[in-house]
Amino acid sequence: MGEAGHEAAVEQFRVSVVGSGNWGSVAAKLVASNTIGHPFFHDEVRMWVFEEVLPCGEKLSDAINRTNENVKYLNGVKLGKNVVADPDLENAVREANMLVFVTPHQFMEGICKRLGGKIRSDAEGISLIKGMEVKKEGPCMISKLITDMLGINCCVLMGANIANEARIAFEKFSEATIGYKHSKEVAQRWAKLFSQSYFLVSAVQDIEGVELCGTLKNVVAIAAGLVDGLDMGNNTKAAIMRIGLREMRALSKRLFSSVKDSTFFESCGVADVITTCLGGRNRRVAEAFARTGGKKSFNELEAELLQGQKLQGVSTAKEVYDVLSHRGWQGLFPLLTTVHKICIGLLPPSAIVEYSEHAPNFSLVEGSAECY
Amino acid sequence: MGEAGHEAAVEQFRVSVVGSGNWGSVAAKLVASNTIGHPFFHDEVRMWVFEEVLPCGEKLSDAINRTNENVKYLNGVKLGKNVVADPDLENAVREANMLVFVTPHQFMEGICKRLGGKIRSDAEGISLIKGMEVKKEGPCMISKLITDMLGINCCVLMGANIANEARIAFEKFSEATIGYKHSKEVAQRWAKLFSQSYFLVSAVQDIEGVELCGTLKNVVAIAAGLVDGLDMGNNTKAAIMRIGLREMRALSKRLFSSVKDSTFFESCGVADVITTCLGGRNRRVAEAFARTGGKKSFNELEAELLQGQKLQGVSTAKEVYDVLSHRGWQGLFPLLTTVHKICIGLLPPSAIVEYSEHAPNFSLVEGSAECY
Repeated sequence: MGEAGHEAAVEQFRVSVVGSGNWGSVAAKLVASNTIGHPFFHDEVRMWVFEEVLPCGEKLSDAINRTNENVKYLNGVKLGKNVVADPDLENAVREANMLVFVTPHQFMEGICKRLGGKIRSDAEGISLIKGMEVKKEGPCMISKLITDMLGINCCVLMGANIANEARIAFEKFSEATIGYKHSKEVAQRWAKLFSQSYFLVSAVQDIEGVELCGTLKNVVAIAAGLVDGLDMGNNTKAAIMRIGLREMRALSKRLFSSVKDSTFFESCGVADVITTCLGGRNRRVAEAFARTGGKKSFNELEAELLQGQKLQGVSTAKEVYDVLSHRGWQGLFPLLTTVHKICIGLLPPSAIVEYSEHAPNFSLVEGSAECY
Repeated sequence: MGEAGHEAAVEQFRVSVVGSGNWGSVAAKLVASNTIGHPFFHDEVRMWVFEEVLPCGEKLSDAINRTNENVKYLNGVKLGKNVVADPDLENAVREANMLVFVTPHQFMEGICKRLGGKIRSDAEGISLIKGMEVKKEGPCMISKLITDMLGINCCVLMGANIANEARIAFEKFSEATIGYKHSKEVAQRWAKLFSQSYFLVSAVQDIEGVELCGTLKNVVAIAAGLVDGLDMGNNTKAAIMRIGLREMRALSKRLFSSVKDSTFFESCGVADVITTCLGGRNRRVAEAFARTGGKKSFNELEAELLQGQKLQGVSTAKEVYDVLSHRGWQGLFPLLTTVHKICIGLLPPSAIVEYSEHAPNFSLVEGSAECY
């Protein structure tokens, strides 16, 4: 009794989830199933909801709190009674010292501006955001943006858990990788918050490598989709995925010397490349692009096929291309370079696997075994 | 003129291909397209044919030499005029100093017995044979068998080029990895013999790692097929493939301390795992096994689905299991262990991704990042 009382007196970690789309809702559910009844965490998980009015006239946040489901973005899945939707961003984060960021990457700068000075001084952050802007000077890591603008430490969580995120909500087995910069203890706390028997979380001290995987894999998925659209078969697709993974690794290491090879064996690396190349929307639109022989643009196909969802691979391919040409690295990254040239119509889809003076010479790629 | 005459006087390398199944015929075609007109190689490629009589009454070797096609195992593909089918094993290898071995692995011991003392003393070998017997004392590497029995150096060539080998014959882009033990120069010679613009060959100094990949991946393919049959989706499948690759790597390193991590980023590693888990026959039969809830045995399904072709994954899983239990390593390799237990009906197919006291605890696997 006395001991229980003592434990209760220790301050518990309080979690807020900033974002409530499909993946944000899944994350809230995962986290909430771990905080409840755990001596270490406060039960309640606040989830910031970008307020919308549903067709029936009800506000989304009210609907979530009434039904315990995100009726718009993760319909049919109970989030857990301890998830509280809150449309007021500042209020949603005020008490939390564990902040989970899971919004479209374009929104993060604005969100950080609004949150400056409004969060607890002992807060820690984690970004689940895949995709970032890659500027000529280098990639705009979301974890760094959060650290710089909010003055807090920030980890990342990536892995083979996209495209059908709802599957995690239905408790199908999957994995994730946490990337951390300094504190293993903090990474372990995040892992404890997210781990489930059906959701295996590991941690590596390589935040840049982990975060870059979540962005660069979308370019590889376009390459894989092109191979699908050309009906080249599994051997070719496997080769393109492998070469893509190799270029991701080589580019990440050139951009950040701290990046580790072993990161690319983790869920954020090889497994996310696999799932994205098997089922993601970048793959799907690229397949359609190749099937039409490049006659319809990616923009057109995106509008036709994705009902308002956005492709990241095409814009990331362009941004990566700008980095490569800015630094004179195109020859070292033939797959990444060629994807962009195909996307903008400079090369035909078949160039991804054809040898010509314009097509990739994969045997020259750095980071590979010796080729002949 | 004088110089050309001088070159012609240098002895050329002569190639024989021992084996003429589907992959053997593809290999002969690949090789023959490189030897022809090359100053370095003698034009003619001898291909040893295990003689059969075709339904029309013609001998297979005669049919190959008449049509320039392997009408039984690679119908419709011209092998190249410089390929000569030879049903006489000793005669087929007599003049060669580059011996390409590509037969079912069970036949190699008998072939080596017949060839002892019958080959050139300066011969080099390369094995394209995927699959080996794994005894309790360790794996029976085909390359080592050849070296021990014939007294010659032997490389291996593996990679994402199975299941639809004929695609390579139709010149779809794919890759391969050569594993070598000592001589980089010899590996380069083999790479020169096999490389094409559509067939990218690299070489790594890790013969054991490369050769083990070609065998162990079949066990991973069974795991992937089970996930398909359970309709678990791509995230789960990607996770299982990743964990499988990790266990392949960890087991190979335990068996041979010389094995390198980087080998598993090569075509023989990640790419072969991908293609085998997407399209191979181990995957296919395992999917059917899971769909029937394990009610039909692998033997029955193999007979139903494969028209006389044989599965390797099930027997390799058993052999690997024997190694693991012999050495007390089962807990370190939960995926490899569980595949065998599912194959023999000791666990249900769903155990591959379910957590229970009997199911795999993947977080304990060695060679992984820290799990929580």
